Amino acid sequence: MKITLTDGRVLDIKEGETLYEAFTRQEVYLTASCGGKGVCGKCKVRIIEGDFECRNYGKLTQEEKQEGIVLACQSVVHSDLFIEIPEESKLIIGDKIAISRTKDLYRILQEYGVELSPLVSRLSLQLHHPTLDDNLGDLERIKRELQTHGLLLRFPKRFVDTLAEQLRSNNWSVNLCWQKDNNEALYLEPQIQKKSYGLAVDIGTTTVVVYLVDTETGEVLDVGSTYNSQIRYGDDVITRIVNATEGGLLSELRRAVVTDINDLLEAILKRKGIRRNEVESMVVSGNTTMSHLFWGFNPENIRLEPYIPTVNIFPVWYARDAGVKINPDAPVYTLPSVASYVGGDIVSGVLATGMHRRAELSLFMDIGTNGEIVVGNNEWLMTAACSAGPCFEGSGIKYGMRATEGAIESVSIDPETLEPKIKVIGDRKPIGICGSGMIDAVAEMLLKGVIDQKGNLQDAPRVREGEEGPEYLFYADSGKEIVLTQADLDNLIRAKGAIYAGVSLLLKEVGLDVEMIEKVYIAGGFGNYIDVKKAIIMGMLPDIPEERFHFVGNTSVAGAYLCLLSEDMRKEAERVASMMTYVELSMKSNYMDEFMSALFLPHTDISLFPSVKERLKI
Amino acid sequence: MKITLTDGRVLDIKEGETLYEAFTRQEVYLTASCGGKGVCGKCKVRIIEGDFECRNYGKLTQEEKQEGIVLACQSVVHSDLFIEIPEESKLIIGDKIAISRTKDLYRILQEYGVELSPLVSRLSLQLHHPTLDDNLGDLERIKRELQTHGLLLRFPKRFVDTLAEQLRSNNWSVNLCWQKDNNEALYLEPQIQKKSYGLAVDIGTTTVVVYLVDTETGEVLDVGSTYNSQIRYGDDVITRIVNATEGGLLSELRRAVVTDINDLLEAILKRKGIRRNEVESMVVSGNTTMSHLFWGFNPENIRLEPYIPTVNIFPVWYARDAGVKINPDAPVYTLPSVASYVGGDIVSGVLATGMHRRAELSLFMDIGTNGEIVVGNNEWLMTAACSAGPCFEGSGIKYGMRATEGAIESVSIDPETLEPKIKVIGDRKPIGICGSGMIDAVAEMLLKGVIDQKGNLQDAPRVREGEEGPEYLFYADSGKEIVLTQADLDNLIRAKGAIYAGVSLLLKEVGLDVEMIEKVYIAGGFGNYIDVKKAIIMGMLPDIPEERFHFVGNTSVAGAYLCLLSEDMRKEAERVASMMTYVELSMKSNYMDEFMSALFLPHTDISLFPSVKERLKI
Repeated sequence: MKITLTDGRVLDIKEGETLYEAFTRQEVYLTASCGGKGVCGKCKVRIIEGDFECRNYGKLTQEEKQEGIVLACQSVVHSDLFIEIPEESKLIIGDKIAISRTKDLYRILQEYGVELSPLVSRLSLQLHHPTLDDNLGDLERIKRELQTHGLLLRFPKRFVDTLAEQLRSNNWSVNLCWQKDNNEALYLEPQIQKKSYGLAVDIGTTTVVVYLVDTETGEVLDVGSTYNSQIRYGDDVITRIVNATEGGLLSELRRAVVTDINDLLEAILKRKGIRRNEVESMVVSGNTTMSHLFWGFNPENIRLEPYIPTVNIFPVWYARDAGVKINPDAPVYTLPSVASYVGGDIVSGVLATGMHRRAELSLFMDIGTNGEIVVGNNEWLMTAACSAGPCFEGSGIKYGMRATEGAIESVSIDPETLEPKIKVIGDRKPIGICGSGMIDAVAEMLLKGVIDQKGNLQDAPRVREGEEGPEYLFYADSGKEIVLTQADLDNLIRAKGAIYAGVSLLLKEVGLDVEMIEKVYIAGGFGNYIDVKKAIIMGMLPDIPEERFHFVGNTSVAGAYLCLLSEDMRKEAERVASMMTYVELSMKSNYMDEFMSALFLPHTDISLFPSVKERLKI
Repeated sequence: MKITLTDGRVLDIKEGETLYEAFTRQEVYLTASCGGKGVCGKCKVRIIEGDFECRNYGKLTQEEKQEGIVLACQSVVHSDLFIEIPEESKLIIGDKIAISRTKDLYRILQEYGVELSPLVSRLSLQLHHPTLDDNLGDLERIKRELQTHGLLLRFPKRFVDTLAEQLRSNNWSVNLCWQKDNNEALYLEPQIQKKSYGLAVDIGTTTVVVYLVDTETGEVLDVGSTYNSQIRYGDDVITRIVNATEGGLLSELRRAVVTDINDLLEAILKRKGIRRNEVESMVVSGNTTMSHLFWGFNPENIRLEPYIPTVNIFPVWYARDAGVKINPDAPVYTLPSVASYVGGDIVSGVLATGMHRRAELSLFMDIGTNGEIVVGNNEWLMTAACSAGPCFEGSGIKYGMRATEGAIESVSIDPETLEPKIKVIGDRKPIGICGSGMIDAVAEMLLKGVIDQKGNLQDAPRVREGEEGPEYLFYADSGKEIVLTQADLDNLIRAKGAIYAGVSLLLKEVGLDVEMIEKVYIAGGFGNYIDVKKAIIMGMLPDIPEERFHFVGNTSVAGAYLCLLSEDMRKEAERVASMMTYVELSMKSNYMDEFMSALFLPHTDISLFPSVKERLKI
């Protein structure tokens, strides 16, 4: 049987196969954090025509059912179908990139030259069998043996609960698993060859990424990613904090993200045939608010002056404390935060790039939902949060969307005809514009005179008066129009201005200029698609040679991976966090000047952008 | 209104007063571990005549109700009554002694010259208010302050859960409560004058005793005691171990004793108007099996050669781990055991007597359900368990009973008429004979020729042939007869033989004789009533001057009290435990000889008992 999608693609489907299975087999990926079990309710598709059977509608509303929406993982078909896949059901493309890059991770670890030393340490114990003459208690027998290794551990009651039985059933030869940071015994296990797994988790404001890692080899075995379900409590961290505190929804927010992780995990473990209990360590990387919500800590004070988080340097706690469904005794390490608005994800990023080890002046930028930057080298690191807002992720832009199928990802404007040429992710009809497309658009419009240096739309082809004022028409076809409004442009310019002003101010704090930056690391899924030249023209990135820019992908999960495998890396993460001087931009008297100057395209001080000056011929 | 008891006593009762209240007011004590709430079902009385109303029969059976049994705490009366108090409802007399001795405890602590240092340490913190310039996280702010005190604590997640709120609501001035052994932060509290309480608990095989202590002054505020409800799973530890393991009743045994403690506690806290959360530390002292059952550890290997307990030196755990209903973060210290049959109660005993600090040769004896002994001084300590069996507690003796009302507690036999003269606890009609009475009886019968030196009943007045062979009639009145049978005598002689053989063998191990013993400490409620002279005649105690014997009461709870209040005492308890060399008597080739020699009255080697030799004129 055939499935025809609204974008024109045609897939086949076998008798008894679910829609989800058929899609996955033919590389049409749907979000389904539960891995196709009918639980997460994310793999919604709309059946426009055809004979189908949905076994379980899960949490779908009556309204959705009437529109023909079903859960793909719960539906089989009895005829050819015509189907629409709603935007929110499509898997984020960055995910595939994340997977392709995992091989690089082990290389980073090797470059650091550190030994594998996961959060769980193992010690092989061959205990003397007790006799009437050597009648030490079981626990004291273990302690005596540990003393010969110079270890003096703490033993929680749960360790002792099964001690007698385990020692005897293993004939007094066991591995003792313990946690070094807490100096605590975790559990005993038989001395047989067994695998040991860990999770590196990036909790982004928008997406959650889970890597399953073999902690003995460092190999990434599988990857899962999904939207952070906290999105239903707000797109940005501030809204979520308000919901958690004033709205009393803290436990719901915690549960949302933990459930996302558990759902991803369940699917991964099923695919790999691994039992939960074999996953015995975990590292979490996220911004300060995400880390607080993951552990269920009230994030209220992150939002209130003087912006004090409850914890920056998280102790090692356990999976049982977090509610993550792996071995309940699994230690969970949390990447340390620097301040309320520079979190573990940024520390992760610095760690993954290694900029804190090199003498050259580097700039690290994570232009995600918030916009954090770090400048420095092996002697000093300064960091700030730019409050750029989430417009590059689609929020606050009329046709803005994330970088998924149907998003305009690049734009050029013909210098003669001034007709725009667009490229759409998935080579299909566009439905919106994503961050990289927005940057392209602004740069092209500036170069071709569609907007002036203040960003104001000029009298030009395709510029028209829309409902909300002047707008530029990118695309029009059979009733579907995509525009960029004057308000959108103003938003984008404020965002790029905030980022550039942040970089500029941090450098001025230490008496340096932007051209001294020897390397720029651009992190985040979004970063991968930026056309550096255009971002420079727009004045978002500093005007330095293109070869100095490096796209480094999801460094948050990369740092989590490093910390999962190495004690040295965990120590280094803490060293990085303590090295970083946080600058609260809003409290700097000269920040407003920097920001105002950066609201020009590319900048009020054109001498800072010599290459753009050249191209604009000003 | 009047209540007449079957023993002839007459009490008054007021309108609306419960029987339990009336009894307690007039110093007739009933067991009621729940403190008179109708929960424990222990304060049963039988109403023979009169008009009454029982509001709640609790767990009483239909049969019991038909016999007129009610719960005293649930019953009010409407006329004069005639009432019988069953034996099992009467409070153990030792309890009153325990209470009267609590004033001595603080004196012991003072003699040791130690500072009060409970299990919870407190540190007053005045934190700097956070500002934009001093923007450390809440936890890091505490850590910075602790560093100035040289403290580097671990912080469990639960500590951080309420951290932000507590710091702010207390305006950054708080007390930090922490646990030194675990180097762990427990909780914060406001800096107001508050009381701090702790529990010292003796878990005996037969009785459970709880002391509520003011941990700031050392004052014992209240005492509670009850039968150990584990009795329904066996009178002795071996039966309970079998029930816990082969019977699969481990969790029931654990729950039984924890419920006893919780019930006693609830009554005490109610009396004193103290909230559960204010009780923030606890020390438990018991034999090795009792300690294992309290923590829910399988005691199986205690019973199986080579008799290895799971734990001897218990780490400090928490009330939440034990299920004791005090502050869940309250640390719980367990007195260390020496071996499977010499437990924390004996270490407690040594600690309370201080024998390990003095140069003189001392003997410590706990002749309870088991029979443990310690000999030694400040340089060495040897210990053994005698397997004396519970006959001195009434078990295995035809009319044996515990030392409660109605027990024959002393006996003398007229040298002329050979008529026995008995003394009964409570000055009432006797219903049985308790340990001290048995010792008296054996000694008197020997002195007066009613039995020979092998313990065999002779042809004498009141010696007759009973159903089970020869027996001695102590008492006969209106159909009630109390006898001591030949089998009873054999049991008693085996028990005293085991005890004496143990003492003798321990001393021989170090080349010493019994007459070198400078001090004998006799511990346990039972010990208080022993007539030393008679116990020497019987050959249970060594034949040394009477002034060397000291009755020291419940040293198990005394040691718990010391450890509750002082870190030095806890360290000393562990030092005592490690000082003690355990001798497994059954594995000593000469033990059987010692035992056989001790089966004679007083002993095969009469030269060991010169004073008895003199009296017996042999």
